[in-house]
Amino acid sequence: METQLTSGKQQVIISPDQPFVIIGERINPTRRKKLSETLAAGNFSVALEDARSQVAAGAQVLDVNAGVPGADEPKLLADLTRALMAQMDVSLCFDSANPAALEAALSVYTGKALLNSTTGEEKSLNTVLPLAAKYHAAVIAVLSDDSGIPPTPEARLAVARKIVQRASDYGVPREDVVVDCLAMTVSADTNAGRVTLDTMQLVRQELGVNLSLGASNVSFGLPERKAINAAYLALAVARGLTAAITDPTVPELRTTLLACDLLMGHDEFAMNWIRAYRAAQKAAAQS
Amino acid sequence: METQLTSGKQQVIISPDQPFVIIGERINPTRRKKLSETLAAGNFSVALEDARSQVAAGAQVLDVNAGVPGADEPKLLADLTRALMAQMDVSLCFDSANPAALEAALSVYTGKALLNSTTGEEKSLNTVLPLAAKYHAAVIAVLSDDSGIPPTPEARLAVARKIVQRASDYGVPREDVVVDCLAMTVSADTNAGRVTLDTMQLVRQELGVNLSLGASNVSFGLPERKAINAAYLALAVARGLTAAITDPTVPELRTTLLACDLLMGHDEFAMNWIRAYRAAQKAAAQS
Repeated sequence: METQLTSGKQQVIISPDQPFVIIGERINPTRRKKLSETLAAGNFSVALEDARSQVAAGAQVLDVNAGVPGADEPKLLADLTRALMAQMDVSLCFDSANPAALEAALSVYTGKALLNSTTGEEKSLNTVLPLAAKYHAAVIAVLSDDSGIPPTPEARLAVARKIVQRASDYGVPREDVVVDCLAMTVSADTNAGRVTLDTMQLVRQELGVNLSLGASNVSFGLPERKAINAAYLALAVARGLTAAITDPTVPELRTTLLACDLLMGHDEFAMNWIRAYRAAQKAAAQS
Repeated sequence: METQLTSGKQQVIISPDQPFVIIGERINPTRRKKLSETLAAGNFSVALEDARSQVAAGAQVLDVNAGVPGADEPKLLADLTRALMAQMDVSLCFDSANPAALEAALSVYTGKALLNSTTGEEKSLNTVLPLAAKYHAAVIAVLSDDSGIPPTPEARLAVARKIVQRASDYGVPREDVVVDCLAMTVSADTNAGRVTLDTMQLVRQELGVNLSLGASNVSFGLPERKAINAAYLALAVARGLTAAITDPTVPELRTTLLACDLLMGHDEFAMNWIRAYRAAQKAAAQS
Protein backbone atom coordinates (compact mmCIF):
# COMPACT_ATOMS: atom_id res chain seq x y z
CA MET A 1 0.00 0.00 0.00
CA GLU A 2 1.37 3.41 -0.98
CA THR A 3 0.82 6.74 0.75
CA GLN A 4 1.69 9.50 -1.70
CA LEU A 5 2.55 13.02 -0.61
CA THR A 6 3.42 15.84 -2.97
CA SER A 7 4.93 19.31 -2.96
CA GLY A 8 5.45 21.42 -6.04
CA LYS A 9 7.06 18.97 -8.42
CA GLN A 10 8.22 16.40 -5.84
CA GLN A 11 6.49 13.23 -4.81
CA VAL A 12 7.15 11.14 -1.71
CA ILE A 13 5.95 7.56 -1.48
CA ILE A 14 5.59 5.89 1.89
CA SER A 15 5.47 2.13 1.34
CA PRO A 16 7.02 -1.09 2.67
CA ASP A 17 8.50 -1.53 -0.80
CA GLN A 18 10.29 1.83 -0.80
CA PRO A 19 13.16 3.34 1.19
CA PHE A 20 12.20 4.48 4.66
CA VAL A 21 10.72 8.00 4.81
CA ILE A 22 12.19 10.36 7.39
CA ILE A 23 9.83 13.10 8.56
CA GLY A 24 12.15 15.74 10.02
CA GLU A 25 11.02 16.72 13.52
CA ARG A 26 13.10 19.79 14.22
CA ILE A 27 10.69 22.58 13.23
CA ASN A 28 8.89 22.37 16.54
CA PRO A 29 9.27 25.15 19.13
CA THR A 30 8.68 22.83 22.09
CA ARG A 31 11.88 22.91 24.16
CA ARG A 32 13.73 24.90 21.47
CA LYS A 33 14.10 28.43 22.79
CA LYS A 34 15.73 30.12 19.82
CA LEU A 35 13.30 28.63 17.31
CA SER A 36 10.40 29.60 19.54
CA GLU A 37 11.59 33.20 19.94
CA THR A 38 12.29 33.73 16.26
CA LEU A 39 8.98 32.22 15.22
CA ALA A 40 7.15 34.44 17.73
CA ALA A 41 8.81 37.44 16.09
CA GLY A 42 7.76 36.28 12.61
CA ASN A 43 11.39 35.54 11.78
CA PHE A 44 11.74 32.23 9.93
CA SER A 45 15.52 32.09 9.61
CA VAL A 46 16.02 29.38 12.25
CA ALA A 47 13.12 27.34 10.90
CA LEU A 48 14.44 27.58 7.35
CA GLU A 49 17.89 26.52 8.45
CA ASP A 50 16.32 23.54 10.25
CA ALA A 51 14.51 22.73 7.02
CA ARG A 52 17.69 22.88 4.95
CA SER A 53 19.78 20.82 7.34
CA GLN A 54 17.14 18.12 7.67
CA VAL A 55 16.61 17.82 3.91
CA ALA A 56 20.38 17.64 3.46
CA ALA A 57 20.47 14.81 6.02
CA GLY A 58 17.82 12.83 4.16
CA ALA A 59 14.42 14.07 5.37
CA GLN A 60 11.84 13.66 2.60
CA VAL A 61 9.07 15.31 4.63
CA LEU A 62 9.26 18.08 7.22
CA ASP A 63 7.04 18.19 10.26
CA VAL A 64 6.03 21.81 10.85
CA ASN A 65 4.78 22.91 14.23
CA ALA A 66 4.14 26.59 15.01
CA GLY A 67 2.73 26.15 18.50
CA VAL A 68 4.45 29.14 20.05
CA PRO A 69 2.74 30.18 23.30
CA GLY A 70 0.76 33.38 22.80
CA ALA A 71 1.10 33.42 19.01
CA ASP A 72 -1.72 33.42 16.43
CA GLU A 73 -1.01 29.82 15.48
CA PRO A 74 -3.15 29.61 12.30
CA LYS A 75 -1.53 32.73 10.84
CA LEU A 76 1.95 31.67 11.95
CA LEU A 77 1.65 28.14 10.56
CA ALA A 78 0.32 29.49 7.23
CA ASP A 79 3.10 32.09 7.00
CA LEU A 80 5.74 29.52 7.87
CA THR A 81 4.31 27.18 5.24
CA ARG A 82 4.57 29.92 2.61
CA ALA A 83 8.13 30.70 3.64
CA LEU A 84 9.14 27.03 3.42
CA MET A 85 7.48 26.61 0.01
CA ALA A 86 9.28 29.70 -1.27
CA GLN A 87 12.65 28.24 -0.23
CA MET A 88 12.42 24.58 -1.15
CA ASP A 89 10.33 21.88 -2.73
CA VAL A 90 9.68 19.42 0.10
CA SER A 91 6.56 17.70 1.41
CA LEU A 92 5.17 19.10 4.63
CA CYS A 93 3.50 17.49 7.62
CA PHE A 94 1.35 19.98 9.54
CA ASP A 95 1.59 19.39 13.24
CA SER A 96 -1.00 21.03 15.45
CA ALA A 97 -3.74 20.23 17.92
CA ASN A 98 -5.57 23.30 16.59
CA PRO A 99 -7.82 22.48 13.59
CA ALA A 100 -7.87 26.14 12.55
CA ALA A 101 -4.09 26.08 12.26
CA LEU A 102 -4.17 22.88 10.21
CA GLU A 103 -6.75 24.39 7.87
CA ALA A 104 -4.84 27.66 7.51
CA ALA A 105 -1.74 25.74 6.46
CA LEU A 106 -3.64 23.38 4.16
CA SER A 107 -5.30 26.30 2.41
CA VAL A 108 -1.95 27.83 1.38
CA TYR A 109 -0.02 24.61 0.72
CA THR A 110 0.56 23.52 -2.88
CA GLY A 111 0.48 19.75 -2.86
CA LYS A 112 -0.76 16.83 -0.84
CA ALA A 113 0.22 17.26 2.80
CA LEU A 114 0.34 14.97 5.81
CA LEU A 115 -1.64 15.95 8.93
CA ASN A 116 -0.20 15.27 12.37
CA SER A 117 -2.58 14.01 13.66
CA THR A 118 -5.92 12.52 14.50
CA THR A 119 -6.40 10.19 17.44
CA GLY A 120 -9.32 7.84 17.91
CA GLU A 121 -11.02 10.47 20.09
CA GLU A 122 -14.39 11.58 18.73
CA LYS A 123 -13.51 15.25 18.81
CA SER A 124 -10.29 14.63 16.91
CA LEU A 125 -11.87 12.33 14.30
CA ASN A 126 -14.70 14.79 13.68
CA THR A 127 -12.42 17.76 13.06
CA VAL A 128 -9.26 16.34 11.49
CA LEU A 129 -10.73 13.76 9.11
CA PRO A 130 -13.05 16.28 7.36
CA LEU A 131 -9.99 18.51 6.82
CA ALA A 132 -8.04 15.61 5.34
CA ALA A 133 -10.95 14.87 3.02
CA LYS A 134 -11.54 18.49 2.03
CA TYR A 135 -7.88 19.21 1.23
CA HIS A 136 -7.04 15.68 -0.01
CA ALA A 137 -4.37 15.24 2.65
CA ALA A 138 -3.01 12.11 4.28
CA VAL A 139 -3.29 11.83 8.04
CA ILE A 140 -1.30 10.29 10.88
CA ALA A 141 -3.58 8.21 13.12
CA VAL A 142 -2.37 7.99 16.70
CA LEU A 143 -3.71 4.94 18.52
CA SER A 144 -5.32 6.50 21.57
CA ASP A 145 -9.00 7.19 22.11
CA ASP A 146 -11.42 8.74 24.59
CA SER A 147 -10.38 6.13 27.17
CA GLY A 148 -6.68 6.92 26.81
CA ILE A 149 -3.89 4.75 25.41
CA PRO A 150 -4.92 1.10 25.28
CA PRO A 151 -2.43 -1.12 27.13
CA THR A 152 -2.54 -4.15 24.80
CA PRO A 153 -1.69 -4.61 21.11
CA GLU A 154 -5.18 -5.99 20.43
CA ALA A 155 -6.90 -2.97 21.98
CA ARG A 156 -4.66 -0.59 20.03
CA LEU A 157 -5.46 -2.50 16.85
CA ALA A 158 -9.14 -1.91 17.59
CA VAL A 159 -8.51 1.85 17.67
CA ALA A 160 -6.65 1.62 14.34
CA ARG A 161 -9.56 -0.31 12.86
CA LYS A 162 -11.98 2.37 14.05
CA ILE A 163 -9.91 5.28 12.70
CA VAL A 164 -9.49 3.62 9.28
CA GLN A 165 -13.25 3.02 9.12
CA ARG A 166 -14.09 6.56 10.17
CA ALA A 167 -11.59 7.96 7.68
CA SER A 168 -13.26 5.94 4.95
CA ASP A 169 -16.66 7.28 6.04
CA TYR A 170 -15.30 10.79 5.58
CA GLY A 171 -13.83 9.95 2.18
CA VAL A 172 -10.21 9.52 3.26
CA PRO A 173 -8.95 6.27 1.68
CA ARG A 174 -7.08 3.73 3.76
CA GLU A 175 -3.80 4.38 1.95
CA ASP A 176 -3.91 7.95 3.26
CA VAL A 177 -4.07 6.84 6.88
CA VAL A 178 -0.59 6.39 8.37
CA VAL A 179 -0.80 4.73 11.76
CA ASP A 180 1.36 5.71 14.74
CA CYS A 181 1.29 2.84 17.25
CA LEU A 182 2.54 5.12 20.05
CA ALA A 183 5.94 4.41 21.55
CA MET A 184 5.75 4.95 25.30
CA THR A 185 8.60 5.22 27.78
CA VAL A 186 10.35 1.96 28.70
CA SER A 187 11.76 3.45 31.88
CA ALA A 188 8.18 3.76 33.15
CA ASP A 189 6.95 0.42 31.81
CA THR A 190 9.30 -2.43 30.93
CA ASN A 191 6.92 -3.76 28.28
CA ALA A 192 6.13 -0.44 26.61
CA GLY A 193 8.52 -0.96 23.71
CA ARG A 194 7.37 -4.46 23.00
CA VAL A 195 3.65 -3.65 23.14
CA THR A 196 4.15 -1.03 20.45
CA LEU A 197 6.20 -3.38 18.26
CA ASP A 198 3.56 -6.09 18.60
CA THR A 199 0.85 -3.54 17.76
CA MET A 200 2.73 -2.58 14.61
CA GLN A 201 2.82 -6.15 13.43
CA LEU A 202 -0.92 -6.63 14.06
CA VAL A 203 -1.88 -3.37 12.36
CA ARG A 204 0.26 -4.10 9.29
CA GLN A 205 -1.08 -7.62 9.07
CA GLU A 206 -4.77 -6.80 9.40
CA LEU A 207 -5.08 -3.34 7.88
CA GLY A 208 -2.07 -3.22 5.54
CA VAL A 209 -1.62 0.49 6.21
CA ASN A 210 1.65 2.35 6.41
CA LEU A 211 3.14 3.03 9.82
CA SER A 212 4.90 6.06 11.24
CA LEU A 213 6.29 6.59 14.71
CA GLY A 214 7.52 9.33 16.98
CA ALA A 215 10.36 7.18 18.21
CA SER A 216 12.10 9.30 20.81
CA ASN A 217 9.70 9.02 23.75
CA VAL A 218 10.70 5.42 24.23
CA SER A 219 14.03 6.42 25.78
CA PHE A 220 12.80 9.27 27.98
CA GLY A 221 14.62 9.48 31.31
CA LEU A 222 17.45 7.12 30.33
CA PRO A 223 21.12 7.72 29.47
CA GLU A 224 22.41 7.28 25.90
CA ARG A 225 19.03 8.04 24.37
CA LYS A 226 20.32 8.14 20.79
CA ALA A 227 21.49 4.53 20.96
CA ILE A 228 18.13 3.41 22.35
CA ASN A 229 16.21 5.37 19.74
CA ALA A 230 18.36 4.02 16.92
CA ALA A 231 17.84 0.42 18.06
CA TYR A 232 14.12 1.06 18.42
CA LEU A 233 13.85 2.34 14.87
CA ALA A 234 15.54 -0.82 13.57
CA LEU A 235 13.30 -3.09 15.65
CA ALA A 236 10.28 -1.16 14.35
CA VAL A 237 11.40 -1.36 10.71
CA ALA A 238 11.48 -5.14 11.04
CA ARG A 239 7.88 -4.98 12.28
CA GLY A 240 6.71 -2.87 9.35
CA LEU A 241 7.56 0.74 10.16
CA THR A 242 7.67 2.73 6.92
CA ALA A 243 8.27 6.27 8.21
CA ALA A 244 9.27 8.06 11.40
CA ILE A 245 9.15 11.54 12.81
CA THR A 246 12.73 11.89 13.89
CA ASP A 247 15.85 14.02 13.55
CA PRO A 248 18.02 12.94 10.61
CA THR A 249 20.74 15.38 11.63
CA VAL A 250 21.56 12.97 14.49
CA PRO A 251 24.12 10.69 12.80
CA GLU A 252 23.18 7.57 14.82
CA LEU A 253 19.57 7.77 13.66
CA ARG A 254 20.33 8.60 10.04
CA THR A 255 22.94 5.84 9.81
CA THR A 256 20.67 3.23 11.36
CA LEU A 257 17.86 4.08 8.94
CA LEU A 258 20.22 3.88 5.96
CA ALA A 259 21.45 0.52 7.21
CA CYS A 260 17.85 -0.65 7.57
CA ASP A 261 17.12 0.34 3.96
CA LEU A 262 20.17 -1.60 2.87
CA LEU A 263 19.24 -4.66 4.91
CA MET A 264 15.56 -4.63 3.95
CA GLY A 265 16.46 -4.69 0.24
CA HIS A 266 15.76 -1.01 -0.50
CA ASP A 267 19.23 0.10 -1.48
CA GLU A 268 20.36 -1.57 -4.67
CA PHE A 269 24.13 -2.08 -4.94
CA ALA A 270 24.33 -0.29 -1.54
CA MET A 271 24.52 2.94 -3.48
CA ASN A 272 22.87 5.13 -0.85
CA TRP A 273 24.93 3.56 1.92
CA ILE A 274 28.20 4.14 0.07
CA ARG A 275 27.18 7.66 -0.99
CA ALA A 276 26.43 8.61 2.63
CA TYR A 277 29.71 7.08 3.75
CA ARG A 278 31.68 9.07 1.17
CA ALA A 279 29.88 12.28 2.12
CA ALA A 280 30.72 11.68 5.78
CA GLN A 281 34.37 10.99 4.90
CA LYS A 282 34.51 14.18 2.84
CA ALA A 283 32.90 16.24 5.60
CA ALA A 284 35.33 14.79 8.16
CA ALA A 285 38.30 15.61 5.91
CA GLN A 286 37.13 19.21 5.56
CA SER A 287 36.52 19.83 9.25
CA MET B 1 10.70 -22.68 24.04
CA GLU B 2 13.90 -22.78 26.08
CA THR B 3 17.32 -24.03 25.04
CA GLN B 4 19.34 -24.68 28.16
CA LEU B 5 23.12 -24.86 28.17
CA THR B 6 25.24 -25.53 31.23
CA SER B 7 28.81 -25.32 32.42
CA GLY B 8 29.99 -26.22 35.90
CA LYS B 9 27.47 -24.40 38.06
CA GLN B 10 26.19 -21.93 35.46
CA GLN B 11 23.11 -22.22 33.30
CA VAL B 12 22.31 -20.24 30.17
CA ILE B 13 18.77 -20.07 28.82
CA ILE B 14 18.16 -19.12 25.20
CA SER B 15 14.52 -18.08 24.87
CA PRO B 16 12.39 -15.28 23.40
CA ASP B 17 11.35 -14.52 26.98
CA GLN B 18 14.90 -14.03 28.23
CA PRO B 19 17.65 -11.50 27.57
CA PHE B 20 19.48 -12.01 24.30
CA VAL B 21 22.34 -14.52 24.48
CA ILE B 22 25.67 -13.42 23.03
CA ILE B 23 27.90 -16.26 21.83
CA GLY B 24 31.36 -14.70 21.72
CA GLU B 25 33.00 -15.35 18.35
CA ARG B 26 36.60 -14.32 19.00
CA ILE B 27 38.19 -17.69 19.80
CA ASN B 28 38.53 -18.56 16.13
CA PRO B 29 41.96 -18.59 14.45
CA THR B 30 40.55 -17.70 11.02
CA ARG B 31 42.11 -14.35 10.06
CA ARG B 32 43.63 -13.94 13.55
CA LYS B 33 47.33 -14.52 13.19
CA LYS B 34 48.43 -14.22 16.81
CA LEU B 35 45.68 -16.49 18.09
CA SER B 36 46.46 -18.99 15.36
CA GLU B 37 50.18 -19.04 16.14
CA THR B 38 49.76 -19.36 19.88
CA LEU B 39 47.18 -22.13 19.53
CA ALA B 40 49.47 -23.99 17.13
CA ALA B 41 52.17 -23.83 19.81
CA GLY B 42 49.80 -25.17 22.46
CA ASN B 43 49.83 -21.77 24.17
CA PHE B 44 46.35 -20.72 25.29
CA SER B 45 47.12 -17.27 26.68
CA VAL B 46 45.57 -15.33 23.78
CA ALA B 47 42.51 -17.58 23.72
CA LEU B 48 42.03 -17.22 27.48
CA GLU B 49 42.32 -13.46 27.25
CA ASP B 50 39.69 -13.49 24.46
CA ALA B 51 37.50 -15.57 26.75
CA ARG B 52 37.88 -13.16 29.66
CA SER B 53 37.26 -10.03 27.61
CA GLN B 54 34.17 -11.46 25.93
CA VAL B 55 32.64 -12.66 29.19
CA ALA B 56 33.35 -9.24 30.71
CA ALA B 57 31.55 -7.65 27.75
CA GLY B 58 28.47 -9.80 28.23
CA ALA B 59 29.05 -13.07 26.38
CA GLN B 60 27.15 -15.89 28.08
CA VAL B 61 28.52 -18.55 25.75
CA LEU B 62 31.90 -18.76 23.98
CA ASP B 63 32.31 -20.18 20.52
CA VAL B 64 35.54 -22.20 20.45
CA ASN B 65 37.22 -23.01 17.18
CA ALA B 66 40.64 -24.65 17.04
CA GLY B 67 40.90 -25.03 13.30
CA VAL B 68 44.58 -24.16 13.02
CA PRO B 69 46.05 -25.38 9.72
CA GLY B 70 48.31 -28.38 10.27
CA ALA B 71 47.29 -28.89 13.91
CA ASP B 72 45.76 -32.02 15.46
CA GLU B 73 42.36 -30.38 15.78
CA PRO B 74 40.66 -32.96 18.04
CA LYS B 75 43.50 -32.82 20.56
CA LEU B 76 43.80 -29.04 20.33
CA LEU B 77 40.07 -28.44 20.79
CA ALA B 78 39.96 -30.82 23.77
CA ASP B 79 43.03 -29.21 25.38
CA LEU B 80 41.63 -25.72 24.81
CA THR B 81 38.32 -26.82 26.32
CA ARG B 82 40.11 -28.07 29.43
CA ALA B 83 42.09 -24.84 29.70
CA LEU B 84 38.93 -22.74 29.42
CA MET B 85 37.08 -24.84 32.00
CA ALA B 86 40.00 -24.50 34.39
CA GLN B 87 39.89 -20.71 34.13
CA MET B 88 36.21 -19.87 34.13
CA ASP B 89 32.69 -21.20 34.38
CA VAL B 90 31.11 -20.36 31.03
CA SER B 91 29.08 -22.35 28.50
CA LEU B 92 30.96 -23.40 25.39
CA CYS B 93 29.93 -23.75 21.77
CA PHE B 94 32.22 -26.15 19.89
CA ASP B 95 32.84 -24.93 16.39
CA SER B 96 34.30 -27.39 13.92
CA ALA B 97 33.59 -29.09 10.63
CA ASN B 98 35.49 -32.10 11.97
CA PRO B 99 33.25 -34.52 13.91
CA ALA B 100 36.28 -36.03 15.67
CA ALA B 101 37.16 -32.61 17.05
CA LEU B 102 33.58 -32.06 18.24
CA GLU B 103 33.59 -35.42 19.98
CA ALA B 104 36.98 -34.85 21.58
CA ALA B 105 35.73 -31.58 23.06
CA LEU B 106 32.39 -33.02 24.13
CA SER B 107 34.09 -35.90 25.89
CA VAL B 108 36.09 -33.59 28.18
CA TYR B 109 33.44 -30.85 28.67
CA THR B 110 31.54 -30.74 31.95
CA GLY B 111 28.05 -29.52 31.12
CA LYS B 112 25.65 -29.23 28.22
CA ALA B 113 27.38 -27.69 25.22
CA LEU B 114 26.23 -26.19 21.96
CA LEU B 115 27.53 -27.65 18.69
CA ASN B 116 28.34 -25.36 15.77
CA SER B 117 26.91 -26.82 13.59
CA THR B 118 24.90 -29.21 11.49
CA THR B 119 23.53 -28.20 8.12
CA GLY B 120 20.73 -29.99 6.29
CA GLU B 121 23.31 -31.97 4.32
CA GLU B 122 23.03 -35.71 4.83
CA LYS B 123 26.66 -36.14 5.80
CA SER B 124 26.40 -33.41 8.39
CA LEU B 125 23.10 -34.63 9.84
CA ASN B 126 24.39 -38.18 10.12
CA THR B 127 27.54 -37.25 12.01
CA VAL B 128 26.63 -34.22 14.12
CA LEU B 129 23.15 -35.21 15.33
CA PRO B 130 24.33 -38.54 16.81
CA LEU B 131 27.02 -36.61 18.70
CA ALA B 132 24.42 -34.16 20.04
CA ALA B 133 22.27 -37.08 21.16
CA LYS B 134 25.14 -39.05 22.70
CA TYR B 135 26.54 -36.12 24.68
CA HIS B 136 23.19 -34.43 25.33
CA ALA B 137 24.27 -31.25 23.55
CA ALA B 138 22.25 -28.60 21.76
CA VAL B 139 23.04 -27.95 18.13
CA ILE B 140 23.02 -25.00 15.74
CA ALA B 141 21.18 -25.89 12.54
CA VAL B 142 22.37 -23.94 9.52
CA LEU B 143 19.76 -23.75 6.76
CA SER B 144 21.66 -25.09 3.78
CA ASP B 145 21.48 -28.58 2.36
CA ASP B 146 22.98 -30.79 -0.33
CA SER B 147 21.62 -28.41 -2.99
CA GLY B 148 23.24 -25.35 -1.41
CA ILE B 149 21.59 -22.37 0.26
CA PRO B 150 17.93 -22.10 -0.71
CA PRO B 151 17.12 -18.66 -2.16
CA THR B 152 13.62 -18.25 -0.67
CA PRO B 153 12.32 -18.12 2.91
CA GLU B 154 9.91 -20.98 2.20
CA ALA B 155 12.67 -23.23 0.89
CA ARG B 156 14.87 -22.42 3.88
CA LEU B 157 11.96 -23.19 6.20
CA ALA B 158 11.74 -26.61 4.54
CA VAL B 159 15.37 -27.27 5.46
CA ALA B 160 14.67 -26.22 9.06
CA ARG B 161 11.68 -28.55 9.16
CA LYS B 162 13.83 -31.40 7.91
CA ILE B 163 16.65 -30.79 10.41
CA VAL B 164 14.23 -30.57 13.35
CA GLN B 165 12.63 -33.85 12.25
CA ARG B 166 15.96 -35.60 11.77
CA ALA B 167 17.16 -34.31 15.15
CA SER B 168 14.05 -35.74 16.75
CA ASP B 169 14.68 -39.09 15.03
CA TYR B 170 18.14 -39.13 16.61
CA GLY B 171 16.74 -38.22 20.02
CA VAL B 172 17.63 -34.53 20.03
CA PRO B 173 14.54 -32.63 21.15
CA ARG B 174 13.32 -29.59 19.23
CA GLU B 175 14.27 -27.20 22.02
CA ASP B 176 17.89 -28.23 21.55
CA VAL B 177 17.92 -27.23 17.89
CA VAL B 178 18.88 -23.57 17.46
CA VAL B 179 18.32 -22.47 13.88
CA ASP B 180 20.70 -20.17 11.96
CA CYS B 181 18.80 -18.73 8.98
CA LEU B 182 22.06 -17.76 7.24
CA ALA B 183 22.77 -14.09 6.70
CA MET B 184 24.33 -13.64 3.27
CA THR B 185 26.09 -10.59 1.88
CA VAL B 186 23.84 -7.68 0.84
CA SER B 187 26.53 -6.20 -1.37
CA ALA B 188 26.25 -9.33 -3.55
CA ASP B 189 22.46 -9.62 -3.40
CA THR B 190 20.21 -6.69 -2.48
CA ASN B 191 17.56 -8.97 -1.01
CA ALA B 192 19.89 -11.17 1.02
CA GLY B 193 19.19 -9.42 4.31
CA ARG B 194 15.45 -9.46 3.87
CA VAL B 195 15.24 -13.11 2.81
CA THR B 196 16.98 -14.12 6.03
CA LEU B 197 14.72 -11.91 8.17
CA ASP B 198 11.63 -13.34 6.48
CA THR B 199 12.98 -16.85 7.01
CA MET B 200 13.43 -16.14 10.71
CA GLN B 201 9.81 -15.10 11.05
CA LEU B 202 8.57 -18.23 9.25
CA VAL B 203 10.79 -20.57 11.24
CA ARG B 204 9.78 -19.01 14.59
CA GLN B 205 6.13 -19.11 13.63
CA GLU B 206 5.98 -22.70 12.41
CA LEU B 207 8.62 -24.48 14.47
CA GLY B 208 8.85 -22.25 17.56
CA VAL B 209 12.57 -22.97 17.88
CA ASN B 210 15.21 -20.56 19.07
CA LEU B 211 17.25 -18.70 16.50
CA SER B 212 20.93 -17.80 16.35
CA LEU B 213 22.82 -15.98 13.65
CA GLY B 214 26.32 -15.29 12.50
CA ALA B 215 25.51 -11.70 11.75
CA SER B 216 28.69 -10.27 10.30
CA ASN B 217 28.66 -11.74 6.79
CA VAL B 218 25.77 -9.50 5.86
CA SER B 219 28.05 -6.45 5.64
CA PHE B 220 30.97 -8.07 3.82
CA GLY B 221 32.65 -5.76 1.31
CA LEU B 222 30.97 -2.59 2.57
CA PRO B 223 32.26 0.37 4.60
CA GLU B 224 31.13 0.93 8.20
CA ARG B 225 30.47 -2.72 8.77
CA LYS B 226 29.85 -2.34 12.51
CA ALA B 227 26.90 -0.03 11.92
CA ILE B 228 25.38 -2.42 9.40
CA ASN B 229 25.90 -5.41 11.67
CA ALA B 230 24.38 -3.58 14.64
CA ALA B 231 21.28 -2.58 12.66
CA TYR B 232 20.97 -6.12 11.36
CA LEU B 233 21.02 -7.57 14.84
CA ALA B 234 18.19 -5.24 15.88
CA LEU B 235 16.12 -6.08 12.79
CA ALA B 236 16.70 -9.76 13.50
CA VAL B 237 15.73 -9.46 17.19
CA ALA B 238 12.38 -8.04 16.08
CA ARG B 239 11.92 -11.11 13.88
CA GLY B 240 12.67 -13.54 16.71
CA LEU B 241 16.44 -13.81 16.99
CA THR B 242 17.34 -15.08 20.47
CA ALA B 243 21.12 -15.44 20.21
CA ALA B 244 23.97 -14.46 17.93
CA ILE B 245 27.55 -15.46 17.32
CA THR B 246 29.16 -12.06 17.48
CA ASP B 247 31.85 -10.00 19.18
CA PRO B 248 30.56 -8.28 22.34
CA THR B 249 33.84 -6.40 22.72
CA VAL B 250 32.70 -4.22 19.79
CA PRO B 251 30.81 -1.46 21.64
CA GLU B 252 28.31 -0.83 18.80
CA LEU B 253 27.16 -4.45 18.84
CA ARG B 254 27.05 -4.82 22.61
CA THR B 255 25.15 -1.53 23.01
CA THR B 256 22.62 -2.39 20.33
CA LEU B 257 21.93 -5.76 21.92
CA LEU B 258 21.49 -4.19 25.36
CA ALA B 259 19.11 -1.64 23.84
CA CYS B 260 17.17 -4.47 22.19
CA ASP B 261 16.80 -6.26 25.54
CA LEU B 262 15.52 -3.02 27.04
CA LEU B 263 13.08 -2.40 24.20
CA MET B 264 11.84 -6.00 23.99
CA GLY B 265 10.92 -5.97 27.69
CA HIS B 266 13.88 -8.01 28.97
CA ASP B 267 15.53 -5.40 31.16
CA GLU B 268 13.34 -4.48 34.10
CA PHE B 269 13.83 -0.93 35.36
CA ALA B 270 16.52 -0.62 32.66
CA MET B 271 18.97 -1.98 35.22
CA ASN B 272 21.32 -3.66 32.74
CA TRP B 273 21.26 -0.64 30.46
CA ILE B 274 22.13 1.75 33.27
CA ARG B 275 24.76 -0.60 34.71
CA ALA B 276 26.50 -0.83 31.32
CA TYR B 277 26.32 2.94 30.94
CA ARG B 278 27.91 3.50 34.34
CA ALA B 279 30.63 0.96 33.63
CA ALA B 280 31.42 2.73 30.34
CA GLN B 281 31.50 6.12 32.11
CA LYS B 282 33.84 4.72 34.74
CA ALA B 283 36.11 3.14 32.14
CA ALA B 284 36.23 6.40 30.20
CA ALA B 285 37.10 8.35 33.35
CA GLN B 286 39.97 5.97 34.11
CA SER B 287 41.48 6.01 30.64
